[in-house]
Amino acid sequence: MHITKNEIKYIRSLSQKKNRQTEQKFVVEGWRALKEVLNSASKVEIAGVLSRYLDDPDYKGILSKLEERGAVVRELTETELNALADTVHAQGVIAVVQQKKGSLEPDVLKKASLVVVADAVSDPGNLGSIIRSSDWFNIDLLLLGKGCVELHNDKVIRSTVGSIFHLPIVEDIELLSTLRVLKKNGFCVIALSGDGKHSYEDQPMSGKLAIVLGSEAHGVSAEVRTLADDIVRIPKYGKAESLNVGVACGIVLARIRSQRETKKGA
Amino acid sequence: MHITKNEIKYIRSLSQKKNRQTEQKFVVEGWRALKEVLNSASKVEIAGVLSRYLDDPDYKGILSKLEERGAVVRELTETELNALADTVHAQGVIAVVQQKKGSLEPDVLKKASLVVVADAVSDPGNLGSIIRSSDWFNIDLLLLGKGCVELHNDKVIRSTVGSIFHLPIVEDIELLSTLRVLKKNGFCVIALSGDGKHSYEDQPMSGKLAIVLGSEAHGVSAEVRTLADDIVRIPKYGKAESLNVGVACGIVLARIRSQRETKKGA
Repeated sequence: MHITKNEIKYIRSLSQKKNRQTEQKFVVEGWRALKEVLNSASKVEIAGVLSRYLDDPDYKGILSKLEERGAVVRELTETELNALADTVHAQGVIAVVQQKKGSLEPDVLKKASLVVVADAVSDPGNLGSIIRSSDWFNIDLLLLGKGCVELHNDKVIRSTVGSIFHLPIVEDIELLSTLRVLKKNGFCVIALSGDGKHSYEDQPMSGKLAIVLGSEAHGVSAEVRTLADDIVRIPKYGKAESLNVGVACGIVLARIRSQRETKKGA
Repeated sequence: MHITKNEIKYIRSLSQKKNRQTEQKFVVEGWRALKEVLNSASKVEIAGVLSRYLDDPDYKGILSKLEERGAVVRELTETELNALADTVHAQGVIAVVQQKKGSLEPDVLKKASLVVVADAVSDPGNLGSIIRSSDWFNIDLLLLGKGCVELHNDKVIRSTVGSIFHLPIVEDIELLSTLRVLKKNGFCVIALSGDGKHSYEDQPMSGKLAIVLGSEAHGVSAEVRTLADDIVRIPKYGKAESLNVGVACGIVLARIRSQRETKKGA
């Protein structure tokens, strides 16, 4: 069946944060992203597909999976898709997906050994790259403070390149009380800051670790500094004022994985 | 003197790439960025300053330095600045700066021991974070292939947070011939790719090194793979398809600096 005007209006309404939050839905674009959704436990509500893909054998698997999962599949024209999609990368498909509300389960905290906590990362590209690195280095849990850009913002979704569906992420956490919960659960809380006392290379990265990232503009807050077990820095060799927060996160996660692997191998 | 209509028109014209390239100028916003410009050898042509800052003792030093260097200083209103500035971060000042055209000097190549080469990084934020990391880890030279986003794009300038003025950057290089020149000059050319044969941790990072980054969409090209002395990867532990190119660059530079420092200390 062809997509209806009301469905188009509904999908378009989800480009606004307040509607995404009321509906608890978000939009993904492109076959690659949709495949990631279907490989996860996320629920697809409605998918709009360009006519020419509906009988394409390459996409048959995805289309039948969509229907098995109870998604409404609608045909749409190129013009309709362009009006709905945010980018040229939509590649023939757009879908509305149910948001999963993660929460801080005691069970998850018990099993977890590596957690990243982002205080107030406001740039969608930065949050996206933090999610990708968190996935790449296989952390157990990503916690996002209230000051972070909305997780289901379209730019964040795009820049995670599917990783948003690969790891547990809890949004809107109250930072300080969460850090206290982590400490009670045996985590060593380490904040990352250019003025940290120790180099991240001198820090033993074993055991239960929570890495805290500050905001782009203000770094790690005074309250977090007080709560943290240690503040570490990435040594500077040049004149830059700071590292990008996503880059800093990646450097530290790479180091943690490398250290843990070496230990296992030793 | 108050800024003229023609000057406003001129500054506004530089928001377009083709005008930046014809004029060989670009625009910086904010006192912090302007300070970095004045600490470098870059020439400021014209600066527009909000009236209230003209007599502010905190900015006296910058203003007199501007005049010493032969810059035209103009007064402007809040409304005029808002119309010119790209962001809310202009903080009272906007300036037109002469582009410095770096070139691949034999002398620079002789002295350099760490070079980063970006093939076709198209996202301004990614190029910005590569420039910041290159500065932070104090590389000797950054080379940008023809496929990269324009260096003086306003989003790139903003996301480098001043680092663009701290290190030699050569734009618009022809990638393959440049890699050949680097090899002739004794550089070991190492490309970074998710499917690299060796882990970056097993790669000796001493001597003259050129690290090649691929494009966001296509990674490292077949031609670069043929020319490179080695292709290394950052080991993956999770399910992410790839790392962000800026993050990957930061991880490898951090490792190189750490290895070189350990060697010095040993």
